[in-house]
Amino acid sequence: MTELSTPGQASQSDTPVLAELKLLRASIDNLDAALVHLLAERFKCTQKVGELKAAHDLPPADPAREAEQIKRLRRLAEEAQLEPQFAEKFLNFIVEEVVRHHKLIAAAVAKGA
Amino acid sequence: MTELSTPGQASQSDTPVLAELKLLRASIDNLDAALVHLLAERFKCTQKVGELKAAHDLPPADPAREAEQIKRLRRLAEEAQLEPQFAEKFLNFIVEEVVRHHKLIAAAVAKGA
Repeated sequence: MTELSTPGQASQSDTPVLAELKLLRASIDNLDAALVHLLAERFKCTQKVGELKAAHDLPPADPAREAEQIKRLRRLAEEAQLEPQFAEKFLNFIVEEVVRHHKLIAAAVAKGA
Repeated sequence: MTELSTPGQASQSDTPVLAELKLLRASIDNLDAALVHLLAERFKCTQKVGELKAAHDLPPADPAREAEQIKRLRRLAEEAQLEPQFAEKFLNFIVEEVVRHHKLIAAAVAKGA
């Protein structure tokens, strides 16, 4: 198999299969960069939500809000041809991390940090 | 507490805390919609990778490629002020789902489906 010398660019010496694999991986890498940057923005928002909640003694988790988010994301996933079940699993994965952050913020506020 | 009648829009009757919470949640909802759509595109790419791999008897998982992806995403996460550890966890979460899809594709190809 030809060596992957220039990531994301197919060269003439590549087999057609390898060339296609490289192009697909380049798109995946671009999408991953976008995903990481959007996740960073999302955590900035939830950081602020956590600070608000801690300052005003609101509970870290909010089951009613989460149920609405799941319903909406499942609908958006269907429209985008993504498995709704995966979209729900993804949101749960993110929310788990957010709740962990919120508990840390609440603990720091309680300590007067 | 004022009822959340217009999602994502603060109204004059909201307390300042509730108004800020609503604005933050509206941003989170926008980011989530973007994330779901990018994930849908990412799975389209990995679907094609899976088909290529199955058709050419390549293994579903690729540890060398995954190690490179993790290294790159950790660097991008740092630049975006996201915890590198979380970016790695996120990639593992996605790759787990991708490998599950690839195995399903390989099984379907093996069956001549």
